[in-house]
Amino acid sequence: MSLADAVQRTAATLGKLAVRMTTKAGSGHPSSALSLSHLVTHLMYRQMRWDPTNPADPNADRLVLSEGHAVPIVYAAYAALKGAVGPAGRNGECPGVLAVADLDALRARDSVLDGHPNPAEGFPFFDAATGSLGMGLSVAAGLALGARLAGSERRIYVLIGDGESREGQIWEAADFIVDHKLTSVCAIFNANGQGQAGNVSPQQSAERLHAKLEAFGWRVLAIDGHNPEEIAAALDQAHRGDRPLAIVARTIKGWGVPALQKGNWHGKPLEEKDLAAADASLDQIVSQVGSGEADGLAPSSPPAGRRPAPAKDPDGVAWPTFAEAMEGAGLGKLLASGKAATRRAYGVALKVAGDLLPQVAVLDADVSNSTFSEVFAKAHPERFFECKIAEQNMVSVAAGLSAAGYIPFANSFAKFFSRAYDQVELASISRANIKLVGSHAGVSLAADGPSQMGLLDVAFFRAFTAVRGDDGESPLCWFFQPADAVAAYHCTRLMTRLRGMCYMRTHRPDVPLLYRPDAVFEPGGLQVLATGEDLALVASGYMVHVAQEAQRELERKRIRVALIDAYSFPIAGPRLIEALQKSGRRALVVEDNYGAGIGAAIAEIAARAGDIRVETMHCGRIPKSTRTPEEQMEYCGLSATRIADRALALLRQPA
Amino acid sequence: MSLADAVQRTAATLGKLAVRMTTKAGSGHPSSALSLSHLVTHLMYRQMRWDPTNPADPNADRLVLSEGHAVPIVYAAYAALKGAVGPAGRNGECPGVLAVADLDALRARDSVLDGHPNPAEGFPFFDAATGSLGMGLSVAAGLALGARLAGSERRIYVLIGDGESREGQIWEAADFIVDHKLTSVCAIFNANGQGQAGNVSPQQSAERLHAKLEAFGWRVLAIDGHNPEEIAAALDQAHRGDRPLAIVARTIKGWGVPALQKGNWHGKPLEEKDLAAADASLDQIVSQVGSGEADGLAPSSPPAGRRPAPAKDPDGVAWPTFAEAMEGAGLGKLLASGKAATRRAYGVALKVAGDLLPQVAVLDADVSNSTFSEVFAKAHPERFFECKIAEQNMVSVAAGLSAAGYIPFANSFAKFFSRAYDQVELASISRANIKLVGSHAGVSLAADGPSQMGLLDVAFFRAFTAVRGDDGESPLCWFFQPADAVAAYHCTRLMTRLRGMCYMRTHRPDVPLLYRPDAVFEPGGLQVLATGEDLALVASGYMVHVAQEAQRELERKRIRVALIDAYSFPIAGPRLIEALQKSGRRALVVEDNYGAGIGAAIAEIAARAGDIRVETMHCGRIPKSTRTPEEQMEYCGLSATRIADRALALLRQPA
Repeated sequence: MSLADAVQRTAATLGKLAVRMTTKAGSGHPSSALSLSHLVTHLMYRQMRWDPTNPADPNADRLVLSEGHAVPIVYAAYAALKGAVGPAGRNGECPGVLAVADLDALRARDSVLDGHPNPAEGFPFFDAATGSLGMGLSVAAGLALGARLAGSERRIYVLIGDGESREGQIWEAADFIVDHKLTSVCAIFNANGQGQAGNVSPQQSAERLHAKLEAFGWRVLAIDGHNPEEIAAALDQAHRGDRPLAIVARTIKGWGVPALQKGNWHGKPLEEKDLAAADASLDQIVSQVGSGEADGLAPSSPPAGRRPAPAKDPDGVAWPTFAEAMEGAGLGKLLASGKAATRRAYGVALKVAGDLLPQVAVLDADVSNSTFSEVFAKAHPERFFECKIAEQNMVSVAAGLSAAGYIPFANSFAKFFSRAYDQVELASISRANIKLVGSHAGVSLAADGPSQMGLLDVAFFRAFTAVRGDDGESPLCWFFQPADAVAAYHCTRLMTRLRGMCYMRTHRPDVPLLYRPDAVFEPGGLQVLATGEDLALVASGYMVHVAQEAQRELERKRIRVALIDAYSFPIAGPRLIEALQKSGRRALVVEDNYGAGIGAAIAEIAARAGDIRVETMHCGRIPKSTRTPEEQMEYCGLSATRIADRALALLRQPA
Repeated sequence: MSLADAVQRTAATLGKLAVRMTTKAGSGHPSSALSLSHLVTHLMYRQMRWDPTNPADPNADRLVLSEGHAVPIVYAAYAALKGAVGPAGRNGECPGVLAVADLDALRARDSVLDGHPNPAEGFPFFDAATGSLGMGLSVAAGLALGARLAGSERRIYVLIGDGESREGQIWEAADFIVDHKLTSVCAIFNANGQGQAGNVSPQQSAERLHAKLEAFGWRVLAIDGHNPEEIAAALDQAHRGDRPLAIVARTIKGWGVPALQKGNWHGKPLEEKDLAAADASLDQIVSQVGSGEADGLAPSSPPAGRRPAPAKDPDGVAWPTFAEAMEGAGLGKLLASGKAATRRAYGVALKVAGDLLPQVAVLDADVSNSTFSEVFAKAHPERFFECKIAEQNMVSVAAGLSAAGYIPFANSFAKFFSRAYDQVELASISRANIKLVGSHAGVSLAADGPSQMGLLDVAFFRAFTAVRGDDGESPLCWFFQPADAVAAYHCTRLMTRLRGMCYMRTHRPDVPLLYRPDAVFEPGGLQVLATGEDLALVASGYMVHVAQEAQRELERKRIRVALIDAYSFPIAGPRLIEALQKSGRRALVVEDNYGAGIGAAIAEIAARAGDIRVETMHCGRIPKSTRTPEEQMEYCGLSATRIADRALALLRQPA
């Protein structure tokens, strides 16, 4: 049998499985899956150099299914190829094998076959969760960067829906891949012409996609996505020259099954009673290609020689002292001045992390001279990736780099990360080991005004800290907000050691050093900067300095005020409670952002205990430009005087 | 004097002001401002049909400065033209006039001249806050849609940075504008070649932008952005034919001031001592063009006849009863079944809102058959705008529609709005009157898995509810989460009446009706569904049904449990406290999302009161696909049994 016939036969056979499994699950997207039948068959059976028993081999080619809802066709192929499933071990080996019979468990609680690609549930064929659309090309770019850094010849194929290519992130990724000449990526656009609520726009037609991709600097080939010869010929052109290849494949949504081509069939399985007709229709296709052995329809092995990311144990490296690091960065004079911005100390720490750990990689979105990731960039240019002004792509690239074994630190203003919160969440679902550092956070940015201030980041990331990871203990995200340069240095070090997502928030202004260079910081830790029996002021980051001023005002009135730096969340509840119990069972928490943040976290702990009164103060209105942080604090109701006044009011309440 | 000479002279004169004001402010972006000198001069003095005393006239042309940091050049022109400033009245008229001397107050606390465009602080020349990059073209699209709906001949000019055009949202907007043939928009790309941390990528070169825009279906003209004749000739071509015009203008960052052209000068003013040299350099340009009167360098008036958005008073229209509305939508049978999804009732309410209020417009991102905004689309197709799969653009288009006087309801899955949280925040800074409705929220979505579930939306929007708007009372956002179809109907009605941002969360599953059709709902309200002296279960949305089941389990154990539906935030604190005081001063709050949400909000209220114990339960781990909501609740630790167990544990604690 010819290769083309074999692909046709396999495509129809896998299509039957895809249709069936969605019916068994009672939900899913059989029509989208069928449109990819031939493309997935050719990629998984022929094009990709990989080993179904160890799909995560660092040399093996990878498939990113950006249009995640089409996943049943991949599950079908994987089962037919006896792919490995289950929780992966150290070298990616898995305990189980996916059988065709397992496909009927699609979307069931105990199945590794999630509704959308989800490697963390035991399907190691994928590197990252997809399903929220438009992210796959960026993930592929991150995998490709990782492969290049590690010296691996891995190639990455990405399947992207035409409707999904409306998402701007696809075009951010298209730019990034050209900028970085990531020709190991091959993007395949599935132009079936139909979305969920209607046809795709003419702006996402095969012709228009073709023109756009060329304008973005890609080589583009147009094919019939159900023609095995055209697929093979196009893929033969991939990974050549210095421009990446995009293939625009016209396909039929519901290919091979007339019932699934009616109207605009999306996201709905066939009823059980209609399965037989679908099978018959696909069987007829099989019968037309004749039988016999198929030559060459089996994956070839990955290139020899494993090329994992270089790595050292983050716990096993000795960091220089804070003073040594600052001296080493030529900042001895700044250190001696006793004042420094947290973002500057972060930059120094990042460079040290790069010195010590070959797996640390850094991304920035055109603000490296503000976030100070430029300190790393100068020392380790080969591991620094300028993403330009495209935060969504940056975060998903980081997820890809993490899947390739690196520890990516992504940097921007705290505000601009909100551009990529959907990407952050998908990275979290992927259990990506990414570190996000947002600078210029909160209202202390002052002059630039509210469009540049991180005001909702604390609420967003705090929510992640309240949820447990797979070990049932660590949070989905560790949150850090250092109050001085020493703390920023040590928190950065902690982030290299913690497995999983971390978010650190830094501030623009220079602030006095609060801590001795050898102060001890830990995840979820807190520092009691002063004790006092009447009341505790609790703050974090820049606000520790404002709270300290309020504390001094109150002390002049003979009120004994504790000052607590709550620099990390989820905060150690018992230690916090203990500190508050020594402080009159009264706390006033202040923060430089909108609500639902640190104050709420502490109120939750207190309300559970039931015998501690907590008041919260946060930015109470939309900020506007002011020339100084002090004026901004006043404008937003957060000046030291306002804090002291609120503390006095709290003390007047009955205990 | 020729028009070209006059533009040159004015550009240099305004440039002096832009440089000076940033020096006086001690921060800002003079080099970016100078690159726009000629373009802004030509637009504001010549091209735009507008009245500086009433810039917000609904017929007047508008300028959207997408690269918001370049704003000083606009402020300079506006002052020179004696533009109106201060809080706008009903018809857009303003109390004050911006004088040239006022420019020195840039970024000061009491100035209307914010660091980035910010109409809400008293600068009515702009429609929306910009400064977080890449949003302006979408805002312009919204303004253009609004103008078309109202029958206004308004034209909209957008200035976009080359570096900024890396943001995918620009390309989402480019698609949208072509789809909707919004030729009243003219996009001008400022290709000065420099970003913040370095040069812009070759992917954002003038040539590449030109090619991309053509591939996206735009007419494109390339010009020298400092050549008045080329600017005039290009703008003459705008608003013709059925394709929108884009102008790619090559410019010089720091035009006219050699000191600002050194290195990659960005975001930094000159020092006071260097002002004289900058002035001299720009004065020399002025001296070269000779003197005399400039012909035609004054804005022409807006087209005659005001064309505001049609509007009725939302408080003055009579809504049909819930039952009438359901019958009217052909859903009488569903109603009789006693079960309906909240999203379905929302769709019905949205259609009614459209029947009653001509200013209601609706947007969706290719999921109108899931969000049920399709009910509106069928009844009012001319006010329904399909945005396809591009949520960022959708939200910023909504902000533009709001600025044009409409009440836009934007729809998608709750999860996918997180794609646009930065845009949501900018809309909030703009005080946009937008309504966001996220469907398929929380873990009850079950089978589709975590990539489709809104799990962080409650934390994000709850933060907005904790901040006050300009009246010092209303929140920046009202949050609604209806537990049944009746509540969804009434909450939608409330959203049409509330001025400002609202977020409503709906769920996928059909749920039993809990409320009588005439039940009363209000912003920040709560419903006590059952009273009980031992403990209160507090929930919202889908979780009310799960909590009700837990309540029944507990009642079988003779525990008297109150059930409170906390359907809106910020919740009325005193009413909540009163209810909890009657329920043993013990509350267990349950929610179907990650933390930092409703539980934290209630804990904050309780911790302030100090004598109520609150426990919170939320989704405790990353969900995976399960086939039913019940299995998902179990998986995430939120089953009725788990809730009942936690309630029992809470009761065992000392009061």
